Amino acid sequence: MLNYKDKRGNLIILSGPSAVGKGTVLRALLKDYDDICYSVSATTRQPRQGELDGKDYFFMSLNKFKKLIKEDEFIEWAEVHNNYYGTPRSYVEETLATGKDVILEIDIQGAKQVKESFDEGIFVFLAPPSLEELKSRINKRGTETQEAINTRMKNATKEIEEINKYDYLIINDKVASAVDKLKSIIIAERCKL
Amino acid sequence: MLNYKDKRGNLIILSGPSAVGKGTVLRALLKDYDDICYSVSATTRQPRQGELDGKDYFFMSLNKFKKLIKEDEFIEWAEVHNNYYGTPRSYVEETLATGKDVILEIDIQGAKQVKESFDEGIFVFLAPPSLEELKSRINKRGTETQEAINTRMKNATKEIEEINKYDYLIINDKVASAVDKLKSIIIAERCKL
Repeated sequence: MLNYKDKRGNLIILSGPSAVGKGTVLRALLKDYDDICYSVSATTRQPRQGELDGKDYFFMSLNKFKKLIKEDEFIEWAEVHNNYYGTPRSYVEETLATGKDVILEIDIQGAKQVKESFDEGIFVFLAPPSLEELKSRINKRGTETQEAINTRMKNATKEIEEINKYDYLIINDKVASAVDKLKSIIIAERCKL
Repeated sequence: MLNYKDKRGNLIILSGPSAVGKGTVLRALLKDYDDICYSVSATTRQPRQGELDGKDYFFMSLNKFKKLIKEDEFIEWAEVHNNYYGTPRSYVEETLATGKDVILEIDIQGAKQVKESFDEGIFVFLAPPSLEELKSRINKRGTETQEAINTRMKNATKEIEEINKYDYLIINDKVASAVDKLKSIIIAERCKL
């Protein structure tokens, strides 16, 4: 009798510089492909209109968040503009144990933390076709001052040097093609021996 | 300026026990996906009706084949029922050098030879859902004596132990799903860093 082992799920980390389109690619993937769980982050910031607790974020008090940090309950966390954001370890662990894959969309600093605290992840770097294109995407958002744009570009240039620590590189030239590649990586990793 | 390196193509080796459906899966892949080159084998056997030289096989004399063996011009070769079959090294090398992927459909013994003579391949094992299912597929072909079937089953049981030397495992339960997985592996491997 053949005996193919039931596999533990994979943790996929989708990262890349700010404004490269991580959120857009992830949303398109989840629309098209439901065989993966999105890792919902915890945050101390207030819910925005339409945001649902447990779907968009796990909303929690600063006290609770700090308690969970102490208990090593986040595989990564960060403070951004006085709000805390983090990835709950228990949700990730429990989902992987059932054999389901989990996907995490996260900035480069967060991905670095995951690499340290959770060695088994599959790290996917989403990169812009060029730095010029990235700048134009940041400009299009129209929400930033020139100084903030310059800082973002400086960070991006530095962050792209992190590529060689990743397992896969996807150039986000077209969303549909990037989604197709991401989906292929998820399916291929499941066939890995 | 970002500088994404042009990559050499990948050599994909699709292997698995006899009657598992390698040919069917490969034909369905090539119909659906033209971004890969099929590695045409050389053979000393006579062309069958409809077979084209350079498309189905490179047909050649025994003398020429033996000369090419001596010159290490095959990454694998075998003698089957008094005919010789082999994979020309020059075709594979030249195609990979242009950045194109090459796929090779081959039995387990041939894959072993490729592993020894061509270390960079990506090895995909196509496996039956169960040995019972494999037996039923061999029976359906209706071209074999009971003794031949028994030999095939014995070989298959032994060959499946080779799985752990492969990079990927695809269970061929449905052709469409197997093709989808194979395609995903090819696309994902191109994104590898």
